[in-house]
Amino acid sequence: MSVLVVGSVALDTVETPFGRVRETLGGSATYFSAAASFFHEVQLVGIVGSDYPVGSLKFLAERGVDLSGLVHAEGESFRWSGFYGYDLNSAETRETRLGVFADFRPRIPDAFRDADWVFLANIDPELQLDVLEQVRAPKLVACDTMNFWIEWKRDALLRLLERADVALINDGEIRKLTGDHNLTRAARWLQERGPEVVVVKKGEHGAMLFTRETIFFVPGYPLEEIFDPTGAGDAFAGGFLGYLAQVGSTEPEELRRAMVFGSAMGSFAVERFGLDRLKDLSLEEIHARVRSFKEMTSFEHTLPAGVHA
Amino acid sequence: MSVLVVGSVALDTVETPFGRVRETLGGSATYFSAAASFFHEVQLVGIVGSDYPVGSLKFLAERGVDLSGLVHAEGESFRWSGFYGYDLNSAETRETRLGVFADFRPRIPDAFRDADWVFLANIDPELQLDVLEQVRAPKLVACDTMNFWIEWKRDALLRLLERADVALINDGEIRKLTGDHNLTRAARWLQERGPEVVVVKKGEHGAMLFTRETIFFVPGYPLEEIFDPTGAGDAFAGGFLGYLAQVGSTEPEELRRAMVFGSAMGSFAVERFGLDRLKDLSLEEIHARVRSFKEMTSFEHTLPAGVHA
Repeated sequence: MSVLVVGSVALDTVETPFGRVRETLGGSATYFSAAASFFHEVQLVGIVGSDYPVGSLKFLAERGVDLSGLVHAEGESFRWSGFYGYDLNSAETRETRLGVFADFRPRIPDAFRDADWVFLANIDPELQLDVLEQVRAPKLVACDTMNFWIEWKRDALLRLLERADVALINDGEIRKLTGDHNLTRAARWLQERGPEVVVVKKGEHGAMLFTRETIFFVPGYPLEEIFDPTGAGDAFAGGFLGYLAQVGSTEPEELRRAMVFGSAMGSFAVERFGLDRLKDLSLEEIHARVRSFKEMTSFEHTLPAGVHA
Repeated sequence: MSVLVVGSVALDTVETPFGRVRETLGGSATYFSAAASFFHEVQLVGIVGSDYPVGSLKFLAERGVDLSGLVHAEGESFRWSGFYGYDLNSAETRETRLGVFADFRPRIPDAFRDADWVFLANIDPELQLDVLEQVRAPKLVACDTMNFWIEWKRDALLRLLERADVALINDGEIRKLTGDHNLTRAARWLQERGPEVVVVKKGEHGAMLFTRETIFFVPGYPLEEIFDPTGAGDAFAGGFLGYLAQVGSTEPEELRRAMVFGSAMGSFAVERFGLDRLKDLSLEEIHARVRSFKEMTSFEHTLPAGVHA
């Protein structure tokens, strides 16, 4: 029944119009776990170098994240440094130092191989495929990717997508992958190549869920201050998969709710630098935000007499 | 109880990746009327030249649009020619020939001065202010604008906004007007300067309603083919104001529904070139689309036992 995430555990240096933070906890697996652990136990597989402040991951362990799959290797940890301008929509990377992450070959501990819910965060699609060889019979496989792999590992990525149940991808990436600017057509293109469910993340514009039968929208939460967009997509994925694992279902109504919990977690992630907001968050606050999403999108519709639509 | 619109009646030449149409019916007042007339009688004030194919406006008259405020002047009609690329988000203007529109000084016929619902489409804000001097006691004044006026007639525009109840504005325009990239803060800035209600139109990303107390979102309708984005904003305004006039209320729940009817009308407008789709549309189709919007945004939320949010 557990949730397995394979991805990066990094140190981020981020500058936004609101300030700067140096070597804070970051990485896709870290953000995902911090979000998903509000809903379900999580098993994390990743790698850090000998310089990583592993003590600072204690809050994850206390929240039910099993860190026994985190490899401690000799050498430098993965470091990313980026800058966001006033529109806060896309990061400009200043420096990426892969360190021990360059040789990361995810080895899934035996105790993790029965995971039911698998999130393959944004890493080399060949490694993502390799993880799928190691897990036994997941109930659901979700994957993320990025422009770099779309450009340089397209074939591997398409092979991965054939085996994924859910593709979580942002609007720029799906347009690049499919060569189609229209998100609805792009999502259909992707569904024909594998994933039953496509989730398109649109940053401040919210997110769209495409199943075979329906489309569902969640708006971006209207924050007056977005401090640091880093990790929003992974926090979204954590809320999405964590919620599904908690209810143990992928029924259409649960997928919708998972979208909203994902959006809520993404919206909290950006309220402060790094993981700060996901650290001190409460389940009450999460549900209050989900209720806000409902208030922001609800309306009643009745057909006038004589109109049959 | 009537709806008054003051704006342009034009001939549009439009090229999109899907084709080209030459000198088709266009203009903000035309699109607005075509949409609003599904919900309520409309009074149109505008100007055309001696070359305008006025017979082609007959469908509006048949739908309850009073064209007695349309001035027929000597000279050329307003012509706009534009091009949309594959992203279909913003038009590139190839040519604007104002013709008789250059000297348009809207004179509101006496029979129109008791209008309850007034839409000041995108024209010079000084003319928009002049219209407000001519109407007697409107229940609601809504206005649109564009970058040109934000840049060149900012003071007049701000004076207009002081007297407007609803500002309908697109995301790029409100960012330019307020100097703030954050739409929530930008809307609050605008509300402090006058309009109780701010509607931010975001094209394919939908629209947001800001009242003093709440925010409401409607997504963009996920069309697989967007033929011609021209007029979408005015069709939105027509659905929005037409619906409010029909129900005779600006209660919060009605404003939400008005947003959805506006979005529905905007989504139909772009399905074909020019006014073609708004011409052959039925009320049944409109309500079916509103129901789709509801299906695309509805979810249930229940608090787990022990959580008090």
